[in-house]
Amino acid sequence: MPALFDGLKRILVGRPFRTERLKRKPLPPRIALPIFSSSALSSLAYAPDEILLTLAMAGVAATLLSPQVGLAVLLVLLVLVFSYRQSVAAYPSGGGDYEIVRTNLGPRSGAVVAAALLVDFVLTVAVSSTSAAQYVAAVIPALKDEKALVASVIVAVLVIGNLRGRGQGRWALAIPVYLFVAGMLLLILWGAVLAMTGSLGMAPSAELQIRPEQEFSTGLQGMAGALLILRAFSTGSAALTGIEVPISNVHTLSKPRARNAGRILLVIGVLSGVLTLGTLFLARTTGVKVVSDPQQSLLRDGQPVGPEYMQAPVLTQLAEAVFAGAGLGVILVAVLTIGVLLMAGNHAFNSFPNLASHLAGDGFLPRQLRTRGDRLGFSNGILALGLAAIAVIFAFKGDVTILVQLYVLGVFVSFTLSQAAMLRHWSRILVQVTGRAARAAVHRKRLLNLVGLVLSALVLIVVLITRFTHGAWLAVVGILLLMAIMESLSRHYRQVDSELAVDFTQEATALPARVHALVLVSTVRKPVLRAIAFARASRPSKLEAIMVDVEAAKTERTLADWQQLQIPVPITILASPYRTIADPLIDHIRSIRRVSPRDLVVVYIPEYVVGHWWEQLVHNQTALRVKNRLHHEPGVVVASVPWRLLSTEAGGSEESSAHH
Amino acid sequence: MPALFDGLKRILVGRPFRTERLKRKPLPPRIALPIFSSSALSSLAYAPDEILLTLAMAGVAATLLSPQVGLAVLLVLLVLVFSYRQSVAAYPSGGGDYEIVRTNLGPRSGAVVAAALLVDFVLTVAVSSTSAAQYVAAVIPALKDEKALVASVIVAVLVIGNLRGRGQGRWALAIPVYLFVAGMLLLILWGAVLAMTGSLGMAPSAELQIRPEQEFSTGLQGMAGALLILRAFSTGSAALTGIEVPISNVHTLSKPRARNAGRILLVIGVLSGVLTLGTLFLARTTGVKVVSDPQQSLLRDGQPVGPEYMQAPVLTQLAEAVFAGAGLGVILVAVLTIGVLLMAGNHAFNSFPNLASHLAGDGFLPRQLRTRGDRLGFSNGILALGLAAIAVIFAFKGDVTILVQLYVLGVFVSFTLSQAAMLRHWSRILVQVTGRAARAAVHRKRLLNLVGLVLSALVLIVVLITRFTHGAWLAVVGILLLMAIMESLSRHYRQVDSELAVDFTQEATALPARVHALVLVSTVRKPVLRAIAFARASRPSKLEAIMVDVEAAKTERTLADWQQLQIPVPITILASPYRTIADPLIDHIRSIRRVSPRDLVVVYIPEYVVGHWWEQLVHNQTALRVKNRLHHEPGVVVASVPWRLLSTEAGGSEESSAHH
Repeated sequence: MPALFDGLKRILVGRPFRTERLKRKPLPPRIALPIFSSSALSSLAYAPDEILLTLAMAGVAATLLSPQVGLAVLLVLLVLVFSYRQSVAAYPSGGGDYEIVRTNLGPRSGAVVAAALLVDFVLTVAVSSTSAAQYVAAVIPALKDEKALVASVIVAVLVIGNLRGRGQGRWALAIPVYLFVAGMLLLILWGAVLAMTGSLGMAPSAELQIRPEQEFSTGLQGMAGALLILRAFSTGSAALTGIEVPISNVHTLSKPRARNAGRILLVIGVLSGVLTLGTLFLARTTGVKVVSDPQQSLLRDGQPVGPEYMQAPVLTQLAEAVFAGAGLGVILVAVLTIGVLLMAGNHAFNSFPNLASHLAGDGFLPRQLRTRGDRLGFSNGILALGLAAIAVIFAFKGDVTILVQLYVLGVFVSFTLSQAAMLRHWSRILVQVTGRAARAAVHRKRLLNLVGLVLSALVLIVVLITRFTHGAWLAVVGILLLMAIMESLSRHYRQVDSELAVDFTQEATALPARVHALVLVSTVRKPVLRAIAFARASRPSKLEAIMVDVEAAKTERTLADWQQLQIPVPITILASPYRTIADPLIDHIRSIRRVSPRDLVVVYIPEYVVGHWWEQLVHNQTALRVKNRLHHEPGVVVASVPWRLLSTEAGGSEESSAHH
Repeated sequence: MPALFDGLKRILVGRPFRTERLKRKPLPPRIALPIFSSSALSSLAYAPDEILLTLAMAGVAATLLSPQVGLAVLLVLLVLVFSYRQSVAAYPSGGGDYEIVRTNLGPRSGAVVAAALLVDFVLTVAVSSTSAAQYVAAVIPALKDEKALVASVIVAVLVIGNLRGRGQGRWALAIPVYLFVAGMLLLILWGAVLAMTGSLGMAPSAELQIRPEQEFSTGLQGMAGALLILRAFSTGSAALTGIEVPISNVHTLSKPRARNAGRILLVIGVLSGVLTLGTLFLARTTGVKVVSDPQQSLLRDGQPVGPEYMQAPVLTQLAEAVFAGAGLGVILVAVLTIGVLLMAGNHAFNSFPNLASHLAGDGFLPRQLRTRGDRLGFSNGILALGLAAIAVIFAFKGDVTILVQLYVLGVFVSFTLSQAAMLRHWSRILVQVTGRAARAAVHRKRLLNLVGLVLSALVLIVVLITRFTHGAWLAVVGILLLMAIMESLSRHYRQVDSELAVDFTQEATALPARVHALVLVSTVRKPVLRAIAFARASRPSKLEAIMVDVEAAKTERTLADWQQLQIPVPITILASPYRTIADPLIDHIRSIRRVSPRDLVVVYIPEYVVGHWWEQLVHNQTALRVKNRLHHEPGVVVASVPWRLLSTEAGGSEESSAHH
């Protein structure tokens, strides 16, 4: 069984890598740009859709506002881009929001950011892969009801790819992003040219009508209308996710690092803005209509479109309008989008295990997350992320809209805290700075962060208010739960550390007085004789064989054999009224230690090692149970003396043992 | 977690018993009779029903033949009773059919009987509890569609009762059977009196009509008719199950054992015959109608009775007719029947674990089946039987008719082989016997077994032919599968035994040349210092500390600490390009053993023991993995040096360990 598993692992993951391969060349900007921007740019696959379908609740007229909402998002984007440029100049180590918040607001806030980031990475993977599943369904309509499944397969592919690790070249990660950007720019430009020449076709959904929700039957009015626009704005802020990537990865850049990071940030901001706004304008021009529940809210000639209607994402609808009828254009756009979504998901598979390993190193997460796997990736972290993402996808049945809300919530928790931390940072700097011009510069920088704080807090509050009962509470619970786990693990590890710490002022070479060796005997067979030989070879101060009397007949046979072989070790029979091996043995050990407390008791346990996992099932596992019990006795060392059965050689590498 | 489990176990099973309680007084016949007969007598709860519903396939007229079929069954019963009286006189040891067949036909046939008996015990429990569930439903109609569930609850109760074991007095097992027999005799006698005085009412189903199956639309005719009667006869042979019980339990009887067993057999035969025949006659007189698919084959005024009709078992229908309208009488009969069915199932819970433990002792089944639990029962056998019975019940959706077929098949496999074995037995005896009268007696006995063989083979063949595709193949597969398992286990255990056997002609006291001790070090903490102290205390010929270099920074820190503490043991650093601990360690050990092959290598592994199961999850389990790998190295002893964390004292009894 484990041999089978091993073989499968080799096929999927490949041969192990040597540790030296860890050293990597720094990333030049032309490769870093696409790798760092995949996360931010991939939001083009879903952010415009979310803005449109939120506004569509108030009917067709409301969706015409989408470019304005897009402009508001762009404003926040620019503020955040410039404020992150300040941050990366101030904190060029690659610690990212976690480091900034921890340094300025203390470890507790740092833990909030860490938990939020971990949740975010899970949601990045979940959102990217479900969104990718939507594009898959746009090309292969038969998969339209299997989005959660398709998304999970995508996650599984990412997991395996990342377990394989450093096999891929970096260009393989960069090219899909370049292609996507080129494709999107072409789409928007070509669309703009067509629009200006008046020959731009309409989107396939242009002929449909939207039935607004009850409360918006009179359009976007009053408090509810304002709130809806805020909601569209906050949901559209999904376009901003991922702009924190460059600052968390400065350390992998080629020099000058901070400056390169700043430039990359600017390019990401400009590209993001252009593509999002362009998409929204083009969508308005071509009459794209997307709603959250197409079967009910979309009407064709006054009648609901019915269950066979499949709502395509905005980008493929645009492709259909721009490349009128050319199916290849639609497929190309879908493939490019899937490509960039995969890269975004893939990036989370780098960031999550890195952060988790960092946190594990600080004792906030289980130690296993620090282990590098065969191919040098933090394989436990990769697996944990994959499983969490699949769980989230199925928990929300692959509903991109809800996942995006959670995602925005998590991202803006760290944005907001990061802005607040920078505010504190500049206030501290201000104390040290004297020159008038210099103070004015710091004041300007602080003002920018204040604006950033207000805007990101606004998004956070809107999402919390409008979406708390629609699943956002789960992101909050997830973050709080992670924090609680981190807190209690940290306490546990600290306690263990202090318990195990060596006092360097004391002498470390105290020795136990004498060694009292016991050999556990059941029947006189080869493993027992070997255990006795080994025990004698270690020349203990005292040596006795111990037989626990569970079955009278067996005990007598063993004693007879013992005498016949003239084994030169005294044998002690322990009564066991309740037929357990461990209890009388432990009583005996305690009585030895009562007489001479400084003695070391070594219990030799003969075991045999079988070759196949199923063989293990048919032997009593007494040895294992006795060893577990003895582990709890002070001053006792357990020595296993294995006897390998022939089947271990035939059967290969299997590992299991049994007491006979 | 395990503490919780332990508490639950104590509540369900009770405090452990001392081994002395195993000794039990022999059973006097007045207690042995009811205990040994529960299995045979309980078949009255379902055997008449099966005869009637098989015949009902050919319409109402055919069911009038039921007493004749009952007489045929009675004939077989008498033959088997007298032949078993012969068997018990010849084999009074309590080995039963297994011993008889093994002795006379060889171990392979013995294995068939053993497998068939094991399958039978599972089916005894399955049939008894599903039949009991039918009587429960007759009283509580709301449970009529939950028979499998009710039956499983009954099995669970039997499992717990038997795990509790010897708590119950023997009279508690005897009284339900006495009450059942008394109740049934009263029912039949009272019914006969009423019938003779002409005041016997009709059964509730008397007014219904039966729609015969297509092929019997002209009644019981031709080949098909003959086959149907044979089928009714073979199904009715369910009344014979359990008459082998006394011979398998002779050894628990008071003396004179064989004679007491013979008497008990006779009483069981007579009681069984009287009750079965009486029931069938009474059922005919009161017009009881039972069919296998009541919704379709039972008609009221020409129309199917519909899904709300609930078919009551024959015994409760009789009770309704005899105690006309007195609901208490019906409930009483149901309760008495459930009681005897429970006793029959309970008896299987004694027989199966005993046989399984016997077979495990001979190396035919896993050793675990020999272990006596806290309350001295063979708890693993009890659990195995319970699980198997529940699986069978659900596999056949609690369908008594199919289960009875499988049951009859299994029982008659051992009956047939047992008769054949006795035939062989008498033939052997005949060679030794000389006197004319004595030879004639043996000839008579052999003739009886020949008749028994023919009759039981007939039943077996009929069941196999008529029911093979209706589930009987599963009983055959079950028996063959068990045989295959027994065969391969026996081979495995024999091989292990011969491998481990000590050669008594050789001297058993050879010692390894020298001891080479290694201490596995990761960081310098208390458990490591203790392991070093223990290793030094055992005064090995050579001692070295081993550190595997997985993380360069950690290795350096450890080396610095090592020097600072001036630990008087040389430390060796092993390179590990693939970051595993075990591989470099094993390479090192192999190089040591290559230089001095007769040396013993003892690897000391410092471990710490944590208090809670969840703590275990957050520590690396390197120690466990390294130990497993080392078990496969020849000449290596693994010594665990545990360090108990404080939480083990607070947390109580939990057992788990980790390498730090």
